[in-house]
Amino acid sequence: MDTIYQEIESTSEWLSKFGADCEGGITRLLYSNEWLEAQHALLEKFKLAQMRAYTDEIGNVFGQVKGSFYPDEVIMSGSHVDSVVNGGNLDGQFGIVAAYLAIKYLQDTYGQPLRTLEVVSLAEEEGSRFPTVFWGSKNILGLADNDAVSDIVDKDGIKFVDAMRQCNFDFKAKQQGRNDIKAFVELHIEQGAVLEIEKYPLGVVSSIVGQRRYTVTLKGEANHAGTTPMGYRKDTMYAFSKICHESIEKAQKVGDPLVLTYGKVTPKPNTVNVVPGETEFTIDCRHTDRKQLVDFTEELEQDINRICQEMGIEANIDLWMDEDPIPMDAELVDMICTTLDERNLHFKKMHSGAGHDAQLFAPHVPTAMIFTPSINGISHNPAEKTKTEDLTVGVKALADVLYRLAYVE
Amino acid sequence: MDTIYQEIESTSEWLSKFGADCEGGITRLLYSNEWLEAQHALLEKFKLAQMRAYTDEIGNVFGQVKGSFYPDEVIMSGSHVDSVVNGGNLDGQFGIVAAYLAIKYLQDTYGQPLRTLEVVSLAEEEGSRFPTVFWGSKNILGLADNDAVSDIVDKDGIKFVDAMRQCNFDFKAKQQGRNDIKAFVELHIEQGAVLEIEKYPLGVVSSIVGQRRYTVTLKGEANHAGTTPMGYRKDTMYAFSKICHESIEKAQKVGDPLVLTYGKVTPKPNTVNVVPGETEFTIDCRHTDRKQLVDFTEELEQDINRICQEMGIEANIDLWMDEDPIPMDAELVDMICTTLDERNLHFKKMHSGAGHDAQLFAPHVPTAMIFTPSINGISHNPAEKTKTEDLTVGVKALADVLYRLAYVE
Repeated sequence: MDTIYQEIESTSEWLSKFGADCEGGITRLLYSNEWLEAQHALLEKFKLAQMRAYTDEIGNVFGQVKGSFYPDEVIMSGSHVDSVVNGGNLDGQFGIVAAYLAIKYLQDTYGQPLRTLEVVSLAEEEGSRFPTVFWGSKNILGLADNDAVSDIVDKDGIKFVDAMRQCNFDFKAKQQGRNDIKAFVELHIEQGAVLEIEKYPLGVVSSIVGQRRYTVTLKGEANHAGTTPMGYRKDTMYAFSKICHESIEKAQKVGDPLVLTYGKVTPKPNTVNVVPGETEFTIDCRHTDRKQLVDFTEELEQDINRICQEMGIEANIDLWMDEDPIPMDAELVDMICTTLDERNLHFKKMHSGAGHDAQLFAPHVPTAMIFTPSINGISHNPAEKTKTEDLTVGVKALADVLYRLAYVE
Repeated sequence: MDTIYQEIESTSEWLSKFGADCEGGITRLLYSNEWLEAQHALLEKFKLAQMRAYTDEIGNVFGQVKGSFYPDEVIMSGSHVDSVVNGGNLDGQFGIVAAYLAIKYLQDTYGQPLRTLEVVSLAEEEGSRFPTVFWGSKNILGLADNDAVSDIVDKDGIKFVDAMRQCNFDFKAKQQGRNDIKAFVELHIEQGAVLEIEKYPLGVVSSIVGQRRYTVTLKGEANHAGTTPMGYRKDTMYAFSKICHESIEKAQKVGDPLVLTYGKVTPKPNTVNVVPGETEFTIDCRHTDRKQLVDFTEELEQDINRICQEMGIEANIDLWMDEDPIPMDAELVDMICTTLDERNLHFKKMHSGAGHDAQLFAPHVPTAMIFTPSINGISHNPAEKTKTEDLTVGVKALADVLYRLAYVE
């Protein structure tokens, strides 16, 4: 296993060529030339490693090592091959590299597994080219809605179906999910700074947060900043500041894993000497527990209405995203923790604050995720980076877990 | 005096033609064709009213009725003829119309005054075309700095001096203020809603507020809204909200005449799922008392620094406007109040939250202002409006005051 360090660097470097953009990042959008080249190259790489390499109808790429005793029980690992525009070379991609290297290592070291091992390079997760997400995992699980993508186009007006067919892929003949997958393990960078700050080389994900997103529009009165006494104002910036300040203090008191973000704030007319007559802002709230997420945000909605009513301001609250938290498989998570403990690998059991392919698999097959640290928590950016030492620990941990799943009775 | 109502409507309508824009407002910028036409038309109108009509070197227009006993003691009234882009037809303009009609009425009714009466149509106050303000009053008072305007240009790159010379005006040969003005009285719309809300047809201005304006830049850390726990954030929007919320509550407690406005707020990157790593905002704070203005804003600066320090956020506080409050002449204000009381005219003694030409005159000659109400407090907008009944009360009040100043020993 001493060569893993070198193999991680060489394999990552090799795969990063496909879609390397002029700004030092990776832009590899679904059904683009760069995307197609990457999937073809992975197919060839899997073949060279003595795997049964194949693609499905829509372009997911697989590398399979048949099991000797339970060939129909598939232990799958991988992540998505697509990137955001000008993204880094770890988000998605490293989950494929890690699964490939871990399976190759197991095959080389222990020979044929009892159960079938399979690396997957998922076609799409990010939604960076077309207004759809998780296209890869949805198709594997029989969850894809072909009608939902039949009319969508990218920013250049190219139809999803035309782009797909140009790559020689097409809709699945019948929408039926694979039922041979007995476990799905996804390795991914954390995309946050918790592991780095708390000095853990590994994270074991217990669940993926649910999210609620809102756009709130406050309507008061635009007034002259000099001639309108404080008592005669309907100042939407004051209302926003009270809402934001008080609710973030509440969220801090509730504590992890609740997070609350006011990311976008747009006052009108947005000029120094006019009291903002209108302010639009977004709320992004996440929690691993559905009830607590709903309770917190419903109380926040009430607080917004109360604060605005007191100030004579009209509030329009639009909840436009409401996603349930997705727990990982408790038994599988326990097995991973035990395995890492036995290897004396230091890890943090944690939740994921971002969405991943694993959340599509989890309701259907036993699913788990392993995180490696992100330097400064940076992701979706060419500066996205993890120390190769940490990536190596991640691949070794993944290999240990896959060994348990595929080589042990 | 029964014809005043009609004369107000017809004179306002006549003057509003010069610069009427296609959006229903008035756009009459310094040294534009519309501006020149308005000043020429006023010059002719003053002549027709048997006044000695003249312009000075830079384009202020005057209409003079010589005093019989004290011809060298000038009682002046008027306001600025320029407008903002797409402004209303009262801000500035009505002060000229009112002074003209009041003086004409006095002349028609009481004949020649003891002291000289003079209406002035000031060239510029708004700073809407060139980055300079109060050009008209500054030139009358010998305060204009010719060097400061010699290189400035408008948005089309036209030089201030070229625009001025094209109108046949030029710098004053020597910068010496007029020393014959014994009183300046400016009638203006309130540009706020205090008189309307409190049901006063008139305001007598005791002072014009001082202003301090800041731009504050907060630098924290842009983080993923999902993967960054609340405790690991340096959230500049949270810092801003605490600053804004707490300081506005403080300002409300201090009460009138203090006003505090956060008009412009710009977070970065300004997107729903990223904690804003940077937030820039403006502060506009006004008070009639210099010490209280400075004390309040210095405490606010300390609060900003304290709040940011607690959150690990860097604060850059830039004070870019610091104007002193300007008191009106106490004796003249008292005389006006007595005169209005005698006429049983209901008025509110108040401060002005906006700047006016009167603040340039006040340090040099006894100066006062009379306000008429603004419907809904709207100004700098085609919807700027005052009931003609209220405008009539304003003109009558101004005539009464000018009578006291020019006809009484």
